Amino acid sequence: MKVAKFGGTSLANAEQIKKVCSIVLADRKRRIVVVSAPGKRHKDDTKVTDLLIRYATRFLLDGQADAEKQAVFERYREIVAELGLGEEAGQQLESELDAVLSNRKGLSAERFMDAVKAAGEDTCAKIVAHYLRSLGEEASYVNPKDAGMLVTDEAGNAHVLPEAYEQLAALRERKGITVFPGFFGYAASGELVTFSRGGSDITGSILAAAVTADVYENFTDVDSVYVVNPNLIANPRKVKEITYREMRELSYSGFSVFHEEALIPAYQADIPVCIKNTNNPSAPGTMIVAERPYATNRVSGIASDSGFCSIYVSKFLMNREIGFGRKLLQIFEEEGISYEHTPSGIDNISVILREKDLTEDKEKRIIERIFRELEADDVAVQHSLALVMIVGEGMRQSVGTTARATTALAAAKINLEMINQGSSEVSMMFGVKAAEANRAVIALYQEFFGDDAESADEVSATSVASVSV
Amino acid sequence: MKVAKFGGTSLANAEQIKKVCSIVLADRKRRIVVVSAPGKRHKDDTKVTDLLIRYATRFLLDGQADAEKQAVFERYREIVAELGLGEEAGQQLESELDAVLSNRKGLSAERFMDAVKAAGEDTCAKIVAHYLRSLGEEASYVNPKDAGMLVTDEAGNAHVLPEAYEQLAALRERKGITVFPGFFGYAASGELVTFSRGGSDITGSILAAAVTADVYENFTDVDSVYVVNPNLIANPRKVKEITYREMRELSYSGFSVFHEEALIPAYQADIPVCIKNTNNPSAPGTMIVAERPYATNRVSGIASDSGFCSIYVSKFLMNREIGFGRKLLQIFEEEGISYEHTPSGIDNISVILREKDLTEDKEKRIIERIFRELEADDVAVQHSLALVMIVGEGMRQSVGTTARATTALAAAKINLEMINQGSSEVSMMFGVKAAEANRAVIALYQEFFGDDAESADEVSATSVASVSV
Repeated sequence: MKVAKFGGTSLANAEQIKKVCSIVLADRKRRIVVVSAPGKRHKDDTKVTDLLIRYATRFLLDGQADAEKQAVFERYREIVAELGLGEEAGQQLESELDAVLSNRKGLSAERFMDAVKAAGEDTCAKIVAHYLRSLGEEASYVNPKDAGMLVTDEAGNAHVLPEAYEQLAALRERKGITVFPGFFGYAASGELVTFSRGGSDITGSILAAAVTADVYENFTDVDSVYVVNPNLIANPRKVKEITYREMRELSYSGFSVFHEEALIPAYQADIPVCIKNTNNPSAPGTMIVAERPYATNRVSGIASDSGFCSIYVSKFLMNREIGFGRKLLQIFEEEGISYEHTPSGIDNISVILREKDLTEDKEKRIIERIFRELEADDVAVQHSLALVMIVGEGMRQSVGTTARATTALAAAKINLEMINQGSSEVSMMFGVKAAEANRAVIALYQEFFGDDAESADEVSATSVASVSV
Repeated sequence: MKVAKFGGTSLANAEQIKKVCSIVLADRKRRIVVVSAPGKRHKDDTKVTDLLIRYATRFLLDGQADAEKQAVFERYREIVAELGLGEEAGQQLESELDAVLSNRKGLSAERFMDAVKAAGEDTCAKIVAHYLRSLGEEASYVNPKDAGMLVTDEAGNAHVLPEAYEQLAALRERKGITVFPGFFGYAASGELVTFSRGGSDITGSILAAAVTADVYENFTDVDSVYVVNPNLIANPRKVKEITYREMRELSYSGFSVFHEEALIPAYQADIPVCIKNTNNPSAPGTMIVAERPYATNRVSGIASDSGFCSIYVSKFLMNREIGFGRKLLQIFEEEGISYEHTPSGIDNISVILREKDLTEDKEKRIIERIFRELEADDVAVQHSLALVMIVGEGMRQSVGTTARATTALAAAKINLEMINQGSSEVSMMFGVKAAEANRAVIALYQEFFGDDAESADEVSATSVASVSV
């Protein structure tokens, strides 16, 4: 049994939905289908989810938003018409959608927003089930509430509850093809709650884990995961197979094929994930697995993310003061700031954090508190940093990789603000100035994946073959 | 005005004390002399401080320790006789020493131990002053209590109090040469308290700061600081000039020429420190200064220290959990353990600490608490790690240095367990298995200071000359 999830561009119009259904029908193991809301039909189009957010925002302000509602209806009418589902079916779908959109029913603004957003996926799932039946297939829409998709009660940021898995396991027994709307579940109170944006990936992963699927197929609009951002490098190498933890480290810093949280259920249940292209389903795609064979010092991907800053703190003999680091981190916690990393010297420590978390006010207050409460000698803030990561299972014996990476960066005249290596077994992190991040990624790609890289790999593998384990 | 401090081997016997006095008299600016207790006369000898500790330990157990006391007396008798100070002076010194050793006067065990240990330096200072007077010089012993060496009341681990500096400044006005015993001061209560072992270096630094000396001369038994441990490399390069912070980073990891805390008073008062050899006083020695000219990417020293271990903690999505790091460090704080560094990946963090701090009991309890209180997915302890540091003011633009260092380590087939770089501007730290530390230091020495290193330096300087600042 396979769980197949289709993203927004795979469901953007009738033509795409037909592709989706032919993919589903091409493999009889695809018995659970998870759908997003229809995405963009072309570059300047608006996603249905964004139309729904516009609608709900206006409705909450003015008590009505007819133009915005019609824009949503229009998208679905076009799809229903082109799929030839018939007028009656179209009216039924629209009246169910209208019931959600028009009736706030005493819901709080947050809950109303969640209910409206979720209607995008919900309607889409009904359409797909309808279309499959119109082809003579046994197919049915299932409501997440009936199926038991139990989640925590945080509007717009739900997390699945452990009880959900047990109830959802019953989906195995359903006849034919089950079409399940992504993106939302229900709290114990019975209220609808959505996952964070892009959360249909999470729904698919939860279902795959619940029914112990052979594989969780995630259909999107790219042939595979690439070793580097294709906006930086033309036609970069494709990743055939990658481990969960490699994928997780890459997602952290700019790899956006997959929702960050979506890996967890699959990872915990050890269900392989396959990233495939709806528009090119015969391409093998990328498999995300628990373990894979790997070569020592072989890099699987390079990613970078900017928007970091560092707060440097020094105090003579700091490292003999028990509790200094803890007190420093407590200040950040009390200011509600999650920090990312803390590289340290002997009498100094830097706290790396996301720039968006550090408002001017907080920055001022934190600096003042560090001077006053910790009696620091010096505190300095550096803005506009980027983290560049190289990731690979073969990096456990890392010295060859470090040497190649730093030599390539030196040749590109990129200075290192930070190196953080030694906790993760599969990654190495370099801090550089944000303005130099792209050049750093390109230099690293050339080193590890460029035209001469294959032979360079071999040389490296030879030269570190006897590195101690 | 110069403050000259002489270590134990410089005062081990009469011959050495004569050298010390001729050094003092060779420069009339040497007006304050700080002495340790007599050290080893030869490799298998016992330091007077260790004889005193033996004596006090036995005395505390048995209420007397005649053999141990005679061993101490014997060392001083030999010195007094060979310096020709006369029988009367000898008897006077011995009776003053005996008064400290024989009369516990209701002191706690700790305080008695401190008083006995301090008698080693105190007696030595009296002897040196006496000998200088016997040469016709104006010289006097001064008692730290009379001089105002006020310290905190922690037996065996005193720290100077700010008030001390004001009182000690009056030493400037004394006529002739002042001989000051190192290693101890007095608490506000009037009780004698010693610094930590090797603390005579601290006394000298405090006095140099108090009298704003031109230089604090620290006479020991080596010609200079070397760029690497001379037990690992024969005739390594000498360091002519080094900054306080370079010295501090090197002291952290195995450079033992100088007591770690002794740099602080000199550093704070901006007094240059000169390390010189009593047995070769014409050698220029090593100057420790606030600032020095330096070349980019030039390394000043390599050090290593073993006895570290790491505790690895992983938890999926850890880095989205505000307070995780702080809670982890709080566990270590509650167990009374000072940690050294915390390299981190995306969903994992390692805590590096000194192995001696982690008893089997504490290790078990900490692991159990991390699992229980932080709900970690995995916790693993790695023992027997060493930290290898390369230090240099020219490392602020560090990419060239990192590339050279990691390439040299890769060629030596040494795997890196950790890299910590990015907080200190003057150092870079590599974690390796303890068994590989010496090979790592040798490989780095060859790279940065070996026969071909000069030209390698130049190549490197060219290739990174335009690194951004």
